[in-house]
Amino acid sequence: MFLTLDIIGTIAFAISGVLVALSKKMDFFGILIIAFVTAVGGGTLRDILIGNTPVGWMTNMVFSYTIIGSSIFAIVIRNKINYLRTSLFLFDTIGIGLYTVVGIEKGLNAGLDPLICIALGTISACFGGILRDILCNEIPVIFRKEIYATACILGGTVFFVLREFPIQDDIIFIIAGSVVISARLLAVKFKIALPNIYKD
Amino acid sequence: MFLTLDIIGTIAFAISGVLVALSKKMDFFGILIIAFVTAVGGGTLRDILIGNTPVGWMTNMVFSYTIIGSSIFAIVIRNKINYLRTSLFLFDTIGIGLYTVVGIEKGLNAGLDPLICIALGTISACFGGILRDILCNEIPVIFRKEIYATACILGGTVFFVLREFPIQDDIIFIIAGSVVISARLLAVKFKIALPNIYKD
Amino acid sequence: MFLTLDIIGTIAFAISGVLVALSKKMDFFGILIIAFVTAVGGGTLRDILIGNTPVGWMTNMVFSYTIIGSSIFAIVIRNKINYLRTSLFLFDTIGIGLYTVVGIEKGLNAGLDPLICIALGTISACFGGILRDILCNEIPVIFRKEIYATACILGGTVFFVLREFPIQDDIIFIIAGSVVISARLLAVKFKIALPNIYKD
Repeated sequence: MFLTLDIIGTIAFAISGVLVALSKKMDFFGILIIAFVTAVGGGTLRDILIGNTPVGWMTNMVFSYTIIGSSIFAIVIRNKINYLRTSLFLFDTIGIGLYTVVGIEKGLNAGLDPLICIALGTISACFGGILRDILCNEIPVIFRKEIYATACILGGTVFFVLREFPIQDDIIFIIAGSVVISARLLAVKFKIALPNIYKD
Repeated sequence: MFLTLDIIGTIAFAISGVLVALSKKMDFFGILIIAFVTAVGGGTLRDILIGNTPVGWMTNMVFSYTIIGSSIFAIVIRNKINYLRTSLFLFDTIGIGLYTVVGIEKGLNAGLDPLICIALGTISACFGGILRDILCNEIPVIFRKEIYATACILGGTVFFVLREFPIQDDIIFIIAGSVVISARLLAVKFKIALPNIYKD
Repeated sequence: MFLTLDIIGTIAFAISGVLVALSKKMDFFGILIIAFVTAVGGGTLRDILIGNTPVGWMTNMVFSYTIIGSSIFAIVIRNKINYLRTSLFLFDTIGIGLYTVVGIEKGLNAGLDPLICIALGTISACFGGILRDILCNEIPVIFRKEIYATACILGGTVFFVLREFPIQDDIIFIIAGSVVISARLLAVKFKIALPNIYKD
């Protein structure tokens, strides 16, 4: 169950990387490198901070094969996923939802404080996309007006609130991930932003 | 004593992060993230290089609470710390002074060569500010004309010279930290720079 | 043999760092920091990913002394290595050739999959130069039209093909490193690029 979420998140982020790299007219290896960095960047920083080394994708080859497979797939059908901006937004949002939960779970396994687990979930979810945008010379998604890290923090908070109740772990994973995804979708659709603190 | 220096440095860097983020009109979570990254960035890279994982702020919650507390405090009284440039310079300088000593001490504890300890002190002191400036789209402080890393290297050298004499550790910490702070203050006040090697 | 390749690569990268820093009119410590980061950047990220901490240059002082020595040497004779662009290209290419092989070998020692070893070789070879270019505000070499990471991937593939045959390890190191260097030299000389995937 848990590995499944991780792999679906990997596919979503790899495709989001391919989409940005394609829009920059990169060559084949350039696209693959961006897909890889986007998909593993967040989890790599998380594993390094915890001390889980060699980091996950280096010992479990399923991640490399998933990234290579989904990247080639996305390159081949690139004319079918034409509405780049919309697809990119969707894949990126699914990725942050799933990686937030995966990151929190890894923090819990390392016996860390809930506050630190939420930070790890947010790092897992956001760092790959930040690297993707820096490498492709885009304004990093996290610094745009949209809610991004805030959605992860919200989902992480819901995660730890639900854990206080007698709910099955798998259900909590799915609810918390869905909260992240919904929060970002709704915030962008209804242009919700955090309250302005610069009024005075 | 040692933890105290580390916490005061954390407060100084967190406030310096808040000041830069405020000047960029970031939202509340954006400010908190910049404060966090500035305060823990240098120590995180240092701990990762040494292999002290999970890194310090993840296992000792006093750092997270200190950062959140001093950030909220700085946001609330932001109209009182109005002279942004001067305050920022001061907090940043206190931060690099204290973190240089903290970094050197961690290197010594890991049994590393004095040269490497000085490098670790410099990394601890400078990396958080570099990340802050990159994330806020400022020219990183380390690449401006001011003496910055050089002050850390100077303080680190004084540290290891003093250790040759029968002086108490606490005194050495304070002297070396003060050297870093004074070197930077004096260099900026009297516009001292390294000798130019491009004369010919 | 193996340490020798590592040290020659370190010298090549340190000099490439000095050349870029000189072209940016940095001061003495600035040049030294760029030389250091260029020379140890790739190996540091590789060692962190594998979990080899404290990272190599922190425990074996030969790297620090090599970097400081070759940097001062390059600064002193800087008027003799005047044709900056050509020298830089050459030293950088020697560096990526040697570090690719060193990175692969470290991956093998950690018992990792060949695909991951090639990725580690490429990271070792490319990351220092990327940091150098980012810190010096150049367009990172890896994102220019030239073949760069692709040369490392090619050399890494040759490495694992040759291992299937009864060839001595030292010979394989030299051949694989030479393939990386030749691939880059030839690609730049004859303006070879990867096939364009944007025809349609």
